[in-house]
Amino acid sequence: MQDKYGDVQVTAKKDVVGEKIFNQLNLGFQDCILVRGKLKKFAKAPNGVELIPSEVKILNKAPEKLPIDITGVTDSELDLRLDNRVLDLRNPRNQAVFQIQHVLLKSIRDYLCDQNFTEIVTPKIIGSATEGGTELFPIMYFDKEAFLSQSAQLYKEQLVSDFEKVFELGACYRAEKSRTKRHLCEIYTLDLEIAFADQHDVMNVLENLIHYCHTQIKEKCESELKSLKRWETFEVPEVPFPRYSYTEILHLLEKKANFKIPWGEDISTEAYRELEKILPSFYFIPDWPMSMKPFYIMKNQDDPKISQGFDLQKGWLELVSGGTRVHNKEVLAQQLREKKLNPASFESHLRAFDFGMPPHAGCGLGIGRWLLIITGVEDIREAIFFPRTPDRLTP
Amino acid sequence: MQDKYGDVQVTAKKDVVGEKIFNQLNLGFQDCILVRGKLKKFAKAPNGVELIPSEVKILNKAPEKLPIDITGVTDSELDLRLDNRVLDLRNPRNQAVFQIQHVLLKSIRDYLCDQNFTEIVTPKIIGSATEGGTELFPIMYFDKEAFLSQSAQLYKEQLVSDFEKVFELGACYRAEKSRTKRHLCEIYTLDLEIAFADQHDVMNVLENLIHYCHTQIKEKCESELKSLKRWETFEVPEVPFPRYSYTEILHLLEKKANFKIPWGEDISTEAYRELEKILPSFYFIPDWPMSMKPFYIMKNQDDPKISQGFDLQKGWLELVSGGTRVHNKEVLAQQLREKKLNPASFESHLRAFDFGMPPHAGCGLGIGRWLLIITGVEDIREAIFFPRTPDRLTP
Repeated sequence: MQDKYGDVQVTAKKDVVGEKIFNQLNLGFQDCILVRGKLKKFAKAPNGVELIPSEVKILNKAPEKLPIDITGVTDSELDLRLDNRVLDLRNPRNQAVFQIQHVLLKSIRDYLCDQNFTEIVTPKIIGSATEGGTELFPIMYFDKEAFLSQSAQLYKEQLVSDFEKVFELGACYRAEKSRTKRHLCEIYTLDLEIAFADQHDVMNVLENLIHYCHTQIKEKCESELKSLKRWETFEVPEVPFPRYSYTEILHLLEKKANFKIPWGEDISTEAYRELEKILPSFYFIPDWPMSMKPFYIMKNQDDPKISQGFDLQKGWLELVSGGTRVHNKEVLAQQLREKKLNPASFESHLRAFDFGMPPHAGCGLGIGRWLLIITGVEDIREAIFFPRTPDRLTP
Repeated sequence: MQDKYGDVQVTAKKDVVGEKIFNQLNLGFQDCILVRGKLKKFAKAPNGVELIPSEVKILNKAPEKLPIDITGVTDSELDLRLDNRVLDLRNPRNQAVFQIQHVLLKSIRDYLCDQNFTEIVTPKIIGSATEGGTELFPIMYFDKEAFLSQSAQLYKEQLVSDFEKVFELGACYRAEKSRTKRHLCEIYTLDLEIAFADQHDVMNVLENLIHYCHTQIKEKCESELKSLKRWETFEVPEVPFPRYSYTEILHLLEKKANFKIPWGEDISTEAYRELEKILPSFYFIPDWPMSMKPFYIMKNQDDPKISQGFDLQKGWLELVSGGTRVHNKEVLAQQLREKKLNPASFESHLRAFDFGMPPHAGCGLGIGRWLLIITGVEDIREAIFFPRTPDRLTP
């Protein structure tokens, strides 16, 4: 018999417990029961005790044949597991993943609260297509068209002018038809934004946040990491994390992996896989070309082709995107135009820059991807309770 | 000059700081500046010190005439304030409201984590109209129709069979054309659900949670409560909270307020206002008629007209709805039919009850309403950063 806290052996000999209880305990796997009885020392039982039942209640039955194996002995196919997600989540491996997520979320908040960040909650229903993306889910909002928010970006920037250091843990939505192991349509993200700060301040906060959370997980999730076979390899990374500019990364790829990428082009997944062999842990890539960063990222003051945007990588996987933001309204409007976006569509956002907007910087981080890094799970659909992908809308 | 942590007097005499700095400090309200200088003791200054500037940078300007008054001297009209929400949030009153929210959210999580609840994150995009409501926002999900989730109800019930004690702080969506001071279209709620528990267990958790959070706020938010003029009246309520069954409430209304409601009918806002005169603090109303509770609420075993659902009131305001849930699949399908809902539409949910679903109970609570209770703010649109109502989709 098991519950959230562990298991216990129930021993029922017919001549000790009587025929009624003996027959009641003719149970199937995953039946839900209540047992009253006496605990007895028994060295051979798994926890050194056994329970001798005096009362049994069958609370709910499970069918004899379950649609998937949740013992971890046979691996069922992922789609079948997701179709039966409630059952799948009882797999000890999944129990471990989400117990670790629980500790991770708590650690993130504890750290940021301790650093005087204010928790914010931004709207997910938005009136216009922010960030100009076409990858938006449209909603019928009474008789108006609206959209699901792609990110908390604009709202957290606005709120940084009120609360100086803000964070949000919330959902964002991407109508991308990506079918990779690292993309979802509904994503749970950490967003943070800091006033009177630049990208370097954000990188400092991030590496210390990751160091803190990994320390907490190492301390509190030993059994979970062991059940995921991660105990030996799970890393509390040293700070500071190394920084390699975009240009240095291209040089590194060419020199050490014979992998040539023309300056100004994106780094492909294939290239990142090569990079992981050279840089297996956490590293920042600052100084991306401005052409590859969104309109709200500030340009390098000496070289406007270079942005003040950075990524944080763990080996091949991009975990965080961030940077120094533009805080001057005219510059922001100009950068919108440079990205072929219409400042008029951002009127409500631009107005927030009228009232003494402080210089600020921030970043966004996918919780699911962080969980992949910690748990070693390979598919992002396993790092969220009920994934939403182009092909999956249930359960 | 002020920031998140307080303010300081900057003193610039032309003959001391020089003409350049003296002229720079010809500033407007809400201009964003950086000042370097020396702190000097000065008994007459607000904090006993003044700052003598040696360097001033103007980081961003604000216009001479701001669209709303944020000093608290003149009250601007709420819609105008919401149109300029970023500025409005600098009002000391709003700063206090959201600092209290910050402490409230942290206290809720600390309490529940300490009680071994697991934090869950449920999808807000759902494939079918759960709970049968017509008050759903439709989404185009690629080429399929989908909806925004009305509540975490079904998912938290499913997850209680995996994690036993679960909670979520997240959004839910109601396409109601209610234009009252207590309804929003995007609501931030606390959902919790407990396995091997009934409504009485949930009521116990709730009253202890509220007691804990109010104690934390009383301890940590003295200046905020004072700035809201709530310090004297803000209450850490005694536990347990009184329980008055629905039928007792009707008797009370008739006897003490001469207000007659036929058994089986809802209690109107007008009646609740009368009740507040008799019961000004927190009280539970259990034993509602089954006809007024949703399909997933369990019936009273002795009298199927009575439900095992309860509300938690603070005076006139309903803060929480909860109850013992049905955990038997056949009973659940039957109750769906009794509510004129089609069990086939709930197939994916019903399947979760196949695998040994434990008896369970839970509740849902609106964070905005709790903030109204704590802060004394009267309109729910002031208790959320960026409200969404039938008439408001921006900012």
